[in-house]
Amino acid sequence: MCGDKVERLIPGEMEEELLILNEDLKRVISTKINLINSPLKEMISSGGKRLRPALMLACARFGEYDFEKVKPLALAVELIHTATLVHDDIIDDSPLRRGIPSIQSRLGKDVAVFAGDFIFCRVFELLTSLNDFNILRRTSKVMYKICEGEIKQREDLFRTDITFRNYIYRIQRKTALLFGLSCELGALATNAPLKTVRALYGYGIKIGTAFQLIDDLLDVIGDEKNLGKPAGADIREGVVTLPTLYALTYSPKKDELKNILQNKNLTIEDTKKAIKIIKDSGGVEYTVELTKRYIYKAYKFIDILADIPMKKVLKDVADYIYSRNH
Amino acid sequence: MCGDKVERLIPGEMEEELLILNEDLKRVISTKINLINSPLKEMISSGGKRLRPALMLACARFGEYDFEKVKPLALAVELIHTATLVHDDIIDDSPLRRGIPSIQSRLGKDVAVFAGDFIFCRVFELLTSLNDFNILRRTSKVMYKICEGEIKQREDLFRTDITFRNYIYRIQRKTALLFGLSCELGALATNAPLKTVRALYGYGIKIGTAFQLIDDLLDVIGDEKNLGKPAGADIREGVVTLPTLYALTYSPKKDELKNILQNKNLTIEDTKKAIKIIKDSGGVEYTVELTKRYIYKAYKFIDILADIPMKKVLKDVADYIYSRNH
Repeated sequence: MCGDKVERLIPGEMEEELLILNEDLKRVISTKINLINSPLKEMISSGGKRLRPALMLACARFGEYDFEKVKPLALAVELIHTATLVHDDIIDDSPLRRGIPSIQSRLGKDVAVFAGDFIFCRVFELLTSLNDFNILRRTSKVMYKICEGEIKQREDLFRTDITFRNYIYRIQRKTALLFGLSCELGALATNAPLKTVRALYGYGIKIGTAFQLIDDLLDVIGDEKNLGKPAGADIREGVVTLPTLYALTYSPKKDELKNILQNKNLTIEDTKKAIKIIKDSGGVEYTVELTKRYIYKAYKFIDILADIPMKKVLKDVADYIYSRNH
Repeated sequence: MCGDKVERLIPGEMEEELLILNEDLKRVISTKINLINSPLKEMISSGGKRLRPALMLACARFGEYDFEKVKPLALAVELIHTATLVHDDIIDDSPLRRGIPSIQSRLGKDVAVFAGDFIFCRVFELLTSLNDFNILRRTSKVMYKICEGEIKQREDLFRTDITFRNYIYRIQRKTALLFGLSCELGALATNAPLKTVRALYGYGIKIGTAFQLIDDLLDVIGDEKNLGKPAGADIREGVVTLPTLYALTYSPKKDELKNILQNKNLTIEDTKKAIKIIKDSGGVEYTVELTKRYIYKAYKFIDILADIPMKKVLKDVADYIYSRNH
């Protein structure tokens, strides 16, 4: 996601809060264990869009807003996201994260495993200090479901027979639940009415699903310049996403595509061929159309909310997510 | 640790409870994600001494004993231990765990990372269902300190200049804290008096430290038959333990030892040479002596406790841990 664009969506009143959060993130993960202390802080400092905390700060304004109440939760969702990235990079063998060497490439996979665990544990320590079991329960449930989504993605690798439904299930666990949680916790922490809490959770799930749909789409239609990596990474790694699933069902060349996808050592030529079959099948248009439906569902949840200025920000975020499709 | 011996220490009344726990462990980690569902259950079924839950069940008897209250906590400490093993095996590249293929060798490191995370998250879900913030706070604090201990061990790899004090700090985080927590939570859950809770925590820390001291010692003095792996694994992997630290300080051949230890590709001959230098230095006797002091400190905590039959079991466990030194 392009940082400039997101930042333009954030109202001035939230900018300062996000700066405070950045400092607090570093404080929360600080440890006497030197080996990981600086690398984790540098990872935190090196960026990331803080999209989840920003959503939370926005959603919390539909209740009795109190930054001090929301802050630990905003830290928690960003740290859950960070821990997942540390563990993801082990799996993907990624040399870089946010433009600086990843924890696993700096310190080795072994340290990265426990560095991710350390962040997870800090999240729980932070949450247990809040004395709110409802928040704890919601968060812990979402966390294990995110793990299930990550494992599901590995289970589905190189499988060309997964259903559209399975794919949506997987991306909702992997990505959308944390968006939903971020929106929901903001509202819960500020005692928003139940109807508002539910609408914001629904909104978060829908834009989170749309976010991942577009992320997966960009891997097919994006170019190296925009993606920061060559297109077709998912195809090469065996991650079968919606545009591909569509082509596997409806393309006249579906058998050829299937053969390509099951090869674990794809050449650049093969990858290009697969991308062409997917594009020709209408899989791109179908994914854009489905994303549009999720954005529309997100709008429906926004409609339920009280009419405060922050409502427009939520709509702008949804529109922004959709606008990434080209 | 030899299973037969531990089991002989467990009074009949606890045997049935441990059987129930075994079934519940499988229930708690069950998931719809097939890829990890069976492997995790098989890992749970394949053994492990359940030393931490057993200690908890014993310690809980110093309060108003109620198995139903203690059970979720006993599940939690065993699962924390299990998650740590899953992540440890990734780091050590272990093909086997408890005689069956490890999760990482069955499913790959990538799945193992998230399988371990999944177990950690289940632990929190389990704990948040208890509505007891004191227990949650204690557990989350211990969990991140365990992570710190694991990372500290990696930080100290191949370092011959760590102090005795650093070593004890490391093994207390890595091992003793979870023993302490197991003892403490049992007592907390059954509303034992604060004095008892503190004494049991102290007891757990001391026997946990002794347990790791002996574990590290056995790597020097054990033989392949008893250890299930060749002796000197720590030396080859760069894990500098107390007997080695002693030799590095007091052996006339400390420079030779230092040179051997800093070589990352040790031959079997080099390893044997290092073991001989360590044994000749008196490092073994010193470690046994220090273990004895920890056992003695554990006794002192037992003395504080009310005079119930379970008191003898705690003493027997301490004696058993010490008895593993040959």
